[in-house]
Amino acid sequence: MYKLITKCGGARCGEFETVHGTVQTPVFMNVGTAAAIKGAVSAPELKDLGCQVELSNTYHLHLRPGDDVVHDMGGLHKFMNWDKPILTDSGGFQVFSLAKLRNIKEEGVYFSSHIDGRKIFMGPEESMRIQSNLASTIAMAFDECIENPCEWDYAKNSSERTARWLERCVNELKKLNSMERTINKHQMLFGINQGGTYEDLRIENMKRIRELDTDGYAIGGLAVGESTEEMYHIIETVEPYMPCDKPRYLMGVGTPVNIIEAVDRGIDFFDCVMPSRNARHGTIFTSSGILNILNAKYERDDTPLDEKCSCPVCRNHSKAYIRHLFKAKELLAMRLSVIHNLYFYNHLMDRIRREINDGTFSDFKRSAVEILGRRV
Amino acid sequence: MYKLITKCGGARCGEFETVHGTVQTPVFMNVGTAAAIKGAVSAPELKDLGCQVELSNTYHLHLRPGDDVVHDMGGLHKFMNWDKPILTDSGGFQVFSLAKLRNIKEEGVYFSSHIDGRKIFMGPEESMRIQSNLASTIAMAFDECIENPCEWDYAKNSSERTARWLERCVNELKKLNSMERTINKHQMLFGINQGGTYEDLRIENMKRIRELDTDGYAIGGLAVGESTEEMYHIIETVEPYMPCDKPRYLMGVGTPVNIIEAVDRGIDFFDCVMPSRNARHGTIFTSSGILNILNAKYERDDTPLDEKCSCPVCRNHSKAYIRHLFKAKELLAMRLSVIHNLYFYNHLMDRIRREINDGTFSDFKRSAVEILGRRV
Repeated sequence: MYKLITKCGGARCGEFETVHGTVQTPVFMNVGTAAAIKGAVSAPELKDLGCQVELSNTYHLHLRPGDDVVHDMGGLHKFMNWDKPILTDSGGFQVFSLAKLRNIKEEGVYFSSHIDGRKIFMGPEESMRIQSNLASTIAMAFDECIENPCEWDYAKNSSERTARWLERCVNELKKLNSMERTINKHQMLFGINQGGTYEDLRIENMKRIRELDTDGYAIGGLAVGESTEEMYHIIETVEPYMPCDKPRYLMGVGTPVNIIEAVDRGIDFFDCVMPSRNARHGTIFTSSGILNILNAKYERDDTPLDEKCSCPVCRNHSKAYIRHLFKAKELLAMRLSVIHNLYFYNHLMDRIRREINDGTFSDFKRSAVEILGRRV
Repeated sequence: MYKLITKCGGARCGEFETVHGTVQTPVFMNVGTAAAIKGAVSAPELKDLGCQVELSNTYHLHLRPGDDVVHDMGGLHKFMNWDKPILTDSGGFQVFSLAKLRNIKEEGVYFSSHIDGRKIFMGPEESMRIQSNLASTIAMAFDECIENPCEWDYAKNSSERTARWLERCVNELKKLNSMERTINKHQMLFGINQGGTYEDLRIENMKRIRELDTDGYAIGGLAVGESTEEMYHIIETVEPYMPCDKPRYLMGVGTPVNIIEAVDRGIDFFDCVMPSRNARHGTIFTSSGILNILNAKYERDDTPLDEKCSCPVCRNHSKAYIRHLFKAKELLAMRLSVIHNLYFYNHLMDRIRREINDGTFSDFKRSAVEILGRRV
């Protein structure tokens, strides 16, 4: 289902076909945790922002409103009114970062809900059943996401268990996709590579999970405590062992510069809360660097957030107005900033694809990593 | 500038010409306190919701970002990106409801900012200067809004002072409108009738302020403690003394039923935070009554908030989804509910104008007050 179109150095342009349409890669997925983009942006609006894939969180939707409710409402696409691809994570990351009183066993994880303390068990089969209820386009394998740094022994045991869990995910999803009640009978599955910052574990794990021939492969467990250099190094270590004919997804990354660097190392899929979360605190990504709209120098600045941007916010509103909205604690401040940042990320990916196709990605990268990362 | 088009009983359809376009009356003004509709709705979006007049608050904008900033940014229209009429209140209501350590003198009011305690003086001249800086279409007179019930003596002294203040407003605005630096040199002024719930004071005050021949007249000091019946009675008492060739504005009112009843008593302009504030707490106005979207019965309800509504929310989202957004504390819940409620109010006014023009307003009123007020 993945078709490689162009390569430029390590960077790849491709097309990924799904039952909900074709995704042009490299792609940045827009995070709508609880079936809504934080900052009061609705799913239908995402199309105008250039979003190709929406990402929702299995753990959150399982707790609220319940995946059974989403199933009864016709699945996530209908529930949130979005007809393009949706990727759901497995719940693994949230179980390990949000839930309380965790107890990890071979069968899965026992934990308490961070909302009401309710005891929950989630293993590979449960995660697949929930994601099948949600009826996303792409389901993610249930994994343990360990924090870096982590002892080699723990990382080894954990990544081996995650590999065994993947096999159970594959088997469970096959069953689910053939069931009458299933809404999306073509739900795909991406396996997740783990192994902390250890080259040997990462490679061993990748060799093992590629045997299971899932629809794509993610690198998980990065951007969770290690340095940026370590992160790039792990990508370089694992990449040669990832199948070329499948999309590669770097989970939870990152800044515009991180994304450009990872594309250069062969990554196709990205997601991150950064554009929306930072927007809600006034941090704005622009074509000339990163700005803090709360800065006093913008009090009377009637120029848009980014002179080169043609998003609905930059076409309609000034820095002075958006700064005022933040100061006055108006929710509209968050909405406008989130819209701009998501548009910026989605159009950065457009640009990246164009540069790869034109064979000019290396030149682009050189200037972009310098400009996009600076504070203005 | 006000042209009466049709009468149907006491209800009037008219056109009010302003430098920012013609307003079809009766009209409901949409409240954007700090130059933004609460619930993350932007000014350009208001047009799609049928809004004719936006209302902003002088007190809030004086404190934040400062009316000097708004002036330097080209006035409120440019600042918030809205080119239709804007009405600014005088700050009087907020000085009396929000500010602390008030001291009322003949010259004006000394008070402390509710944000940072800063000491501020505001009198008729200051209010006019601030509103001139904001460059709204219609400025409101600086008045004292007393709470009901109130002693006759206090109400008499207060309403007489408010009438004296109006004279000072008229004189100050005349000066301001002829100054070079003034952005809107055609800024209009509405006087405000006060007098508590006392017929004699209300009539006396109305007789006096109509002599000043302002561009319109408001009834202030209602919906602040008295019963609905008293409110209707005061409107009936004052209305015969209001000029027929000027618009009449009932400040801060109210429910759909209140509005229909007041239109029937000759009122042309309305404003209220109710549709947006109630929306933010899950209270939804519909063509079949008022519903609370948090109700458990909507958990799996895939119908829109109002089957008969064609607002962007009802065209795109279900009750089940919006209920979920509230439960998950997503800001999108507020935005969608505010959009629906404002659309409902604005289109109710459309309907009211149509019924008046068709000579069927009384029949409409009879069924509407029964249906729109009930809880479903």
